[in-house]
Amino acid sequence: MPATNRQIRLAARPVGEVKPDDWQHCSEPVDEPGPGRFAGRTRFISLDPAMRGWLDDRPSYLPPVGIGDVMRAGSVVEVTASDHPDFQPGDHVVGTFGVQEYVVSDGRGAMKVDTSLAPPSTYLGALGMPGMTAYFGLLDVGALKDGETVVVSGAAGAVGSIAGQIAKAKGCRVVGLAGGPEKCAMLTDELGFDAVIDYRTEDVRKELRRHAPDGIDVYFDNVGGDILDAALTRLAMHARVVVCGAISQYNNTTPVKGPSNYLSLLVRRARMEGFVVFDYAERYAQAAREISAWIGAGRIKVKEHVVTGSVDDFPETLGMLFRGENVGKLVLELA
Amino acid sequence: MPATNRQIRLAARPVGEVKPDDWQHCSEPVDEPGPGRFAGRTRFISLDPAMRGWLDDRPSYLPPVGIGDVMRAGSVVEVTASDHPDFQPGDHVVGTFGVQEYVVSDGRGAMKVDTSLAPPSTYLGALGMPGMTAYFGLLDVGALKDGETVVVSGAAGAVGSIAGQIAKAKGCRVVGLAGGPEKCAMLTDELGFDAVIDYRTEDVRKELRRHAPDGIDVYFDNVGGDILDAALTRLAMHARVVVCGAISQYNNTTPVKGPSNYLSLLVRRARMEGFVVFDYAERYAQAAREISAWIGAGRIKVKEHVVTGSVDDFPETLGMLFRGENVGKLVLELA
Repeated sequence: MPATNRQIRLAARPVGEVKPDDWQHCSEPVDEPGPGRFAGRTRFISLDPAMRGWLDDRPSYLPPVGIGDVMRAGSVVEVTASDHPDFQPGDHVVGTFGVQEYVVSDGRGAMKVDTSLAPPSTYLGALGMPGMTAYFGLLDVGALKDGETVVVSGAAGAVGSIAGQIAKAKGCRVVGLAGGPEKCAMLTDELGFDAVIDYRTEDVRKELRRHAPDGIDVYFDNVGGDILDAALTRLAMHARVVVCGAISQYNNTTPVKGPSNYLSLLVRRARMEGFVVFDYAERYAQAAREISAWIGAGRIKVKEHVVTGSVDDFPETLGMLFRGENVGKLVLELA
Repeated sequence: MPATNRQIRLAARPVGEVKPDDWQHCSEPVDEPGPGRFAGRTRFISLDPAMRGWLDDRPSYLPPVGIGDVMRAGSVVEVTASDHPDFQPGDHVVGTFGVQEYVVSDGRGAMKVDTSLAPPSTYLGALGMPGMTAYFGLLDVGALKDGETVVVSGAAGAVGSIAGQIAKAKGCRVVGLAGGPEKCAMLTDELGFDAVIDYRTEDVRKELRRHAPDGIDVYFDNVGGDILDAALTRLAMHARVVVCGAISQYNNTTPVKGPSNYLSLLVRRARMEGFVVFDYAERYAQAAREISAWIGAGRIKVKEHVVTGSVDDFPETLGMLFRGENVGKLVLELA
C-alpha cells in the first residue's frame, strides 16, 4: 500500500452547476485495516445524476454530503488486506466507499461480487443501483403489464437503458427519448427500442403522438422539465408516471419547473409516483438474478461508458452526466 | 307551462375570467314532452368550479360545451307533465339539464330524488356530484386509513367541506385550508375540523408544519397553485395527493402553474393521482347511503349557499366560485 490516499472532498455547496472550486483534492495517510476490517484499492467509481442532489443542504432521502467530507459514491474495490472473515485479498467488493483511492471498511453495506459472472463495473450499473432502480421503478411503481406502451426519458443513461430493455423483455412497446443521433441509433439498433425521439432536434409532443398513438401507459421519467410536460399530454387512461429523477432540473438556480400539465392526471385517471430504490433492498438479489438471466440470454445489453483516470478526474467526469456526454452507465476506472 | 323557456347559452370561448359577453341570454319556445318524455320546471341549478374547464376547447373528461349550446349544468327539476312511466308530475328529478327554466327529457341520466330524506338542493351537493367526488376521491383514490392526517384545500367549498367531514367520520385528523375568517371559523366551529389555515393571511407552509407535525398522509387538492406546492413540502412517507381540481388555475391566461415541489413525491415515496367521479357511477347509491347516514347522525353537516334569482343570474353567480364568495355548495334557486 502506498503512503497516501488521494480523496475528493466537498469544499462548498454548489450553486447551479458544480464548479471546480466546490471540490477539495487532498491526500490523507492510508489507514491500516485493523481488527475486523478490510482494506481495498478502488477500481471503479460510479457517477450518478443523484449525486447532484446529495450536494444540496435540504431534506431528502439521504442526508447531504457534509462540507469537508469525502464525496459519497458507490465503487468497486479490490481487497488488499483483511482481518474480516467475509472478505479476502483479491476479492472485489461493491459499496458506498466514496471518491478515494483506498478504503478501509468494517464490511457494513459492502457486498462481495462475482467477477466471473460479470465484470466488476457491471455491479455499479446493470447489476447495481441503476439496474435495481430500473427494475423496481418499472415493475413495482410502474406496475408494468404485458403489451403496454412504455416511454423512457434519459433512455441512453444508466437507468433508462436498462428500464427500456426490461420493458422490452416484458413484452412492451418501448419508446426512448435521448439527445443526439448517436444515442438514438444505439437505442434502436443495439438495444431494440421500438422507436426513439431525439429531444434536441425533434418536436417531442408530435413524435410522442406518432410513436404512442394509443397513449403512454407507463412513463419512466429521468429528466423532468419540458419532456415530462410533453409526456403528460399523451397519457393513456390509468397511466402511471414513475418519478425516478429530473436531471434537467438538478443544476437549476431557479425553482424546479413543475409539470404544468399535471392536470392530465385527472383527465386520464392517472398517477405520478416517486420511489427510492433503497426501499427494495430485500429484493435486490432476486432482481439481480432476473437481470443477469436477461443479460445471459442477450435480452439486455449492458452499456458502460468508462473513463480511465485518477480520482482527480471525478469532478470533470461528473459534469459529463449533466452535459449528456455519457452513453450508458458512466464509471471512472482508476488507472 | 309558459310560452317561453329562458336559457343561458355559450356565446364565445372565454379567455381568462368568464365575461358577460361570453354568454347569450335567450328565450326559446317551450317544448311539449311528447311520447316517452317528461317536462319539468327547473328549481335548483348547480354551480361548479369544473364548469370553467367545460368552456375550453381542449381534450378533457367531457367534450367542451359547444358555442351556441345551452350551458351544461346539473339541476333539480320538478316534473310538470309526463308521458314517461318513471316520472310523475310533482316528482323532483336530478340530471344534467342545463341552465334553462324548462326541460324536456327522455329520462336518460335523470334520477328521481326523495325530498322527504333531504331537500332537493342537497342532491346537487352532499348527495350529488360534490358528495360523490369527496367520497371516492378520499376513500378510493386517497386510500384513507383510520388515524391519518388529512389536509383539504378549498375546504369550505362543496367538495372540500364534505371531504373534510368524511375524513373526520373515518377517524382522521383533518386540517382545512380556506380563505377568510368566516369560512375558517365555520370549518372548526361548525364542521369539526381539527385545524384550519387561512391561506389569504397565514404562511401556509409554516402553518402546515404546525398543524401536521408528522406530515400529511392524504392531501385532497381542490385548488392547485401555491397551496399544492406548500402541501408537497409536508408529505408523510407514502402520502397520497388526490388531484380533484385546481380552481386557482382555471382562469389563467398563462400556462397552469405546475407543482415545483413534485420531486418530494420521490423523497417521500408518495403518489399524486387524479380521478373523475363518473367512473364510480355504479357505486353512487352505496356512497349516498353512507353519506345520508352520516348526515342523519349529525356527523356531516350540509352547507349550502343558495342564491335566489333567475337563470339570467347564472353568469354572475358562477363568478362567485372563483372569487371565493360561496360557503359550501353554491346553487341558484329559481324564484
